Amino acid sequence: MTSSNESAVDISHVYRGTFVHSTYQKPVDILEDFLVGVDVDGKIAFIESGQEVDSLSQRWSFEVSAVTHLGQHEFFMPGMVDTHIHASQYSFAGTALDLPLLEWLNTYTFPVEARYKDLGFARNVYTHVVKRTLRNGTTTACYFATINTDASLLLAQIANDFGQRALVGKVCMDINNFVPNYKEMPEESQKETTRFIAELLKREYLLVKPVVTPRFAVSCSSTLLNHLGEIAQNNHLHIQSHISETKDEVQLVKELFPDYDSYTDIYHKHNLLTDKTVMAHGCHLTDEELNLFRVSGASIAHCPNSNISLCSGMLDVRRVLNHKVKLGLGTDVAGGYSPSMLDAVRKTLDTSKIFTIQDSQYQTLTFQEVFRLATLGGSQALSLDEQIGNFEVGKDFDALRVNTAAAGGPIDLIDTGEEPEKLLEKFLNLGDDRNIVEVYVAGRRVVPFVESTLV
Amino acid sequence: MTSSNESAVDISHVYRGTFVHSTYQKPVDILEDFLVGVDVDGKIAFIESGQEVDSLSQRWSFEVSAVTHLGQHEFFMPGMVDTHIHASQYSFAGTALDLPLLEWLNTYTFPVEARYKDLGFARNVYTHVVKRTLRNGTTTACYFATINTDASLLLAQIANDFGQRALVGKVCMDINNFVPNYKEMPEESQKETTRFIAELLKREYLLVKPVVTPRFAVSCSSTLLNHLGEIAQNNHLHIQSHISETKDEVQLVKELFPDYDSYTDIYHKHNLLTDKTVMAHGCHLTDEELNLFRVSGASIAHCPNSNISLCSGMLDVRRVLNHKVKLGLGTDVAGGYSPSMLDAVRKTLDTSKIFTIQDSQYQTLTFQEVFRLATLGGSQALSLDEQIGNFEVGKDFDALRVNTAAAGGPIDLIDTGEEPEKLLEKFLNLGDDRNIVEVYVAGRRVVPFVESTLV
Ligand SMILES: [Zn+2]
Ligand SMILES: [Zn+2]
Repeated sequence: MTSSNESAVDISHVYRGTFVHSTYQKPVDILEDFLVGVDVDGKIAFIESGQEVDSLSQRWSFEVSAVTHLGQHEFFMPGMVDTHIHASQYSFAGTALDLPLLEWLNTYTFPVEARYKDLGFARNVYTHVVKRTLRNGTTTACYFATINTDASLLLAQIANDFGQRALVGKVCMDINNFVPNYKEMPEESQKETTRFIAELLKREYLLVKPVVTPRFAVSCSSTLLNHLGEIAQNNHLHIQSHISETKDEVQLVKELFPDYDSYTDIYHKHNLLTDKTVMAHGCHLTDEELNLFRVSGASIAHCPNSNISLCSGMLDVRRVLNHKVKLGLGTDVAGGYSPSMLDAVRKTLDTSKIFTIQDSQYQTLTFQEVFRLATLGGSQALSLDEQIGNFEVGKDFDALRVNTAAAGGPIDLIDTGEEPEKLLEKFLNLGDDRNIVEVYVAGRRVVPFVESTLV
Repeated sequence: MTSSNESAVDISHVYRGTFVHSTYQKPVDILEDFLVGVDVDGKIAFIESGQEVDSLSQRWSFEVSAVTHLGQHEFFMPGMVDTHIHASQYSFAGTALDLPLLEWLNTYTFPVEARYKDLGFARNVYTHVVKRTLRNGTTTACYFATINTDASLLLAQIANDFGQRALVGKVCMDINNFVPNYKEMPEESQKETTRFIAELLKREYLLVKPVVTPRFAVSCSSTLLNHLGEIAQNNHLHIQSHISETKDEVQLVKELFPDYDSYTDIYHKHNLLTDKTVMAHGCHLTDEELNLFRVSGASIAHCPNSNISLCSGMLDVRRVLNHKVKLGLGTDVAGGYSPSMLDAVRKTLDTSKIFTIQDSQYQTLTFQEVFRLATLGGSQALSLDEQIGNFEVGKDFDALRVNTAAAGGPIDLIDTGEEPEKLLEKFLNLGDDRNIVEVYVAGRRVVPFVESTLV
């Protein structure tokens, strides 16, 4: 498990203790008493048995006394990947959940998103959402901003400043019959998207990249979709959108695009279904559509809180996985009320158990599988799994230091013992930000916040 | 809204600010800038407009300067009522959720409950569960302990010491084919129940009372059920048990009690279905059974976390309410992994929304209705609504001081304003114990814990 060019790298930090992560073979792989070395670039240089500390310290030139030791009820796990979150909707998270999707957009969402031309408002909300999600253990977020380019660039800057890994999308939509002041002209949307991408790439943020973001087929003309497909292709960019969230939406899309085989086919024919595409929801996709996802390498962001809260539908995750389609979890703030990926984990399990209630033969997801979806699965869904998602030599050290016994926290460890898998289960079911005592992105500690980033 | 014998009582505390509670007419009734006076017995002496402070201070002889003012983002709400929680199972809460009910009982639950003959273990777990639920805003809990009488008495003592209102049940079960070391002989169960009740009543705890607790029909002989019905009747006691949690259980009960019309009829014929009975779950009750509940005045403890976590079924709360059956919420720790009634609120909403996903005509519960179920509904379900459940003159002051803006808490108030109903909604969806800055039971502040009760 040692990197080949070990002599070339300087070790910046070494941690010793329990590491819990997923591999493609094992949903939960537990490394007890391991040593992980992180180099000055934030990459994992070695993962070895703690017993080897003396020889490792010689080989990698670090002081044994400088090793950070985890406590008895602590472990490191990979940072969580929120594959779908609307940063702009965080201002009303936890309210306004009494309408179905299309009415909810017109009544609550579009009027709020229209306010982001006010950059002061944007800075306030975006700062809160980046800090909150980092505290909650989201080391990577795939963000929808709004149609406003400058506010979207501000979100990218704030994520970068706080050290969160992010894909940031300026939203594109040139159709809005109900809230006409919240949309763009097609040529404006294209121009602003080009400006957004050029400006963001120019800033050369290490961790924050643009993502091409048509809102969804309902809000986009074919002309706009075509152009966005081109932009993505020419710049090898990520793409995100929504698909098949509610039955009403599926029906409406069928009426709006009568000449396409399916909702998925619309994105596909506009070159928006690639191996760097992540589509939120997909509750009502057909087998044919799932096959198109698999063949194209596109992925699904499962957002169970949102799907339940807006009564949109229930995604059968087992079916998606059986189709070999990549899948990650998303909070979908604010259709989902919670900005915590732990909530996404719990609601993914809930949804799977509801399927089991309906059919006792259903192959329920295990908490171990859902843990993988929140970490490695999310990194796959965003095509970032060569860089993040678990603890492998050469990957960036995106990690949460979890203390299940954190003082004042929500977990009582009475009779649990110290079996790491039990501690993980307790944390996933009962833990919160109080248990996430440190958050690392690319080797840099970003939580607790350093004073200068406190707002 | 003034008590008639006002001259006779001494006012101990007066609070001024926003009070949010439920009435039978309104699921959420908001009293802005109100004054609530609590007398030395912990009862609400007056509820009046804050504008009347001067005349009230004269009439009730309190100093205006001694009035406690709530902050801008604070409100008082009634304490929450957990109508069904297994104190003894808290030791493994958040783990062991991978088996259906009957296997879960045999594999995880009975072996743990058998350990409560060790009173040191019992004290440890029971202290944790009482403190945890109090912190989470549970001012009244209806507890299952275990078959061990002395440990059950210890739970009652601990609840009393921490100032929690509680019904405590020594569990009765004389049938256990799978874990034979965890059951009683019928005569032993009767004798111990009698001892438990006599001893607990003798202690004359103001807030803690016994509840007759047959585990469920599967674990109890008809002889035992008969005797427990008699004990309850002779002492006018509360009764709690389980009913119709899973389909397998319903089938098994049908085989065990072939001569009864229904599961409900078994309890009914053994005099265990009274207006002081609360039955957990009831997911699979027929209309006839619900009618029997209504006629007898028995209530249902809805435990949505447990029902989902163990894949037991989904209770249609709207249907129960339409049958005019009393209903409260329960955590059902540890079939439910969370000891927080806020989780029960959220999962009640989730379950109702799942019904809506399945049938768009379904009349989804509103968050306001679920708020009522967690407070006034719970007090009704436990037949305590003449004493607690909302803010009415003459009722005990069981209340939570909620600060939605608590520093370091889980809620960001960005654009919410100060409309109390929005703050309530944010709290119900996103809040946790950090927002529950004070808890009162019968006028006494029990959270934050005073030093002497810290363990
Ligand atoms: Zn979305
Ligand atoms: Zn129970």
